[in-house]
Amino acid sequence: MLKKIDHIGIAVHSIAEAGKFYEAGLGLVCERIEEVKSQKVRTAFFSLGETHIELLEPTSPDSPIARFLEKRGEGIHHIAYRSDNVKDQLHRLKEQGCRLINEQPVPGAGGKQVAFLHPKSTGGVLTELCENLNPEP
Amino acid sequence: MLKKIDHIGIAVHSIAEAGKFYEAGLGLVCERIEEVKSQKVRTAFFSLGETHIELLEPTSPDSPIARFLEKRGEGIHHIAYRSDNVKDQLHRLKEQGCRLINEQPVPGAGGKQVAFLHPKSTGGVLTELCENLNPEP
Repeated sequence: MLKKIDHIGIAVHSIAEAGKFYEAGLGLVCERIEEVKSQKVRTAFFSLGETHIELLEPTSPDSPIARFLEKRGEGIHHIAYRSDNVKDQLHRLKEQGCRLINEQPVPGAGGKQVAFLHPKSTGGVLTELCENLNPEP
Repeated sequence: MLKKIDHIGIAVHSIAEAGKFYEAGLGLVCERIEEVKSQKVRTAFFSLGETHIELLEPTSPDSPIARFLEKRGEGIHHIAYRSDNVKDQLHRLKEQGCRLINEQPVPGAGGKQVAFLHPKSTGGVLTELCENLNPEP
């Protein structure tokens, strides 16, 4: 079952540059900046209500985010939904014919378990399911 | 000040088709389907936590959503943030050099006052600010 939108990922050339709008313009607070080496990205999380805006900046020209920027320019990269059981939900989605990118959950940022669904099955939106295995603070 | 993400707008060819994923796949509940004649779109609102997923289907080939689909294909069209005062926020954003699409709030769906900010100023994201002039239920 889904609980909420966990975050919206936005691909940008520079967190320092795009972050100005989210911090000074919209008044959001940057909670943390984290480098995800496996994805070759630097991420900045801005909190808002129960969800977050995640800015994604490539740290290498062969980062998936660098390729996204080259093809599409800056913009929304994915929506992540918080699930209470990603594994079960992947199983049900697969039975319904949904195209999965990850057949099993994989470790993601912030110690979460995550899996991506293919945009072909979701109205063109790269969709992430994520589950927090640690108890919420 | 922003209170939350009000909704995420996703452009689709068919609400009936894409809605299957959001309803049967993700288990979201469709709250209402509404036609916005001024924008030549039909919209379906699915609630999740404090926010909504809004599917947008064009009702005419000259709808802005039809043009978006032609150019980009299905995918996220905009993010809408709930503000407590859109007019004041537009004024502050303009002073900071943010490029506005609407200089003043205009009437939007659900009786809200809305204004759009240009993707050039927001990391490539068409951004809506909306304000509910009616007291929340």
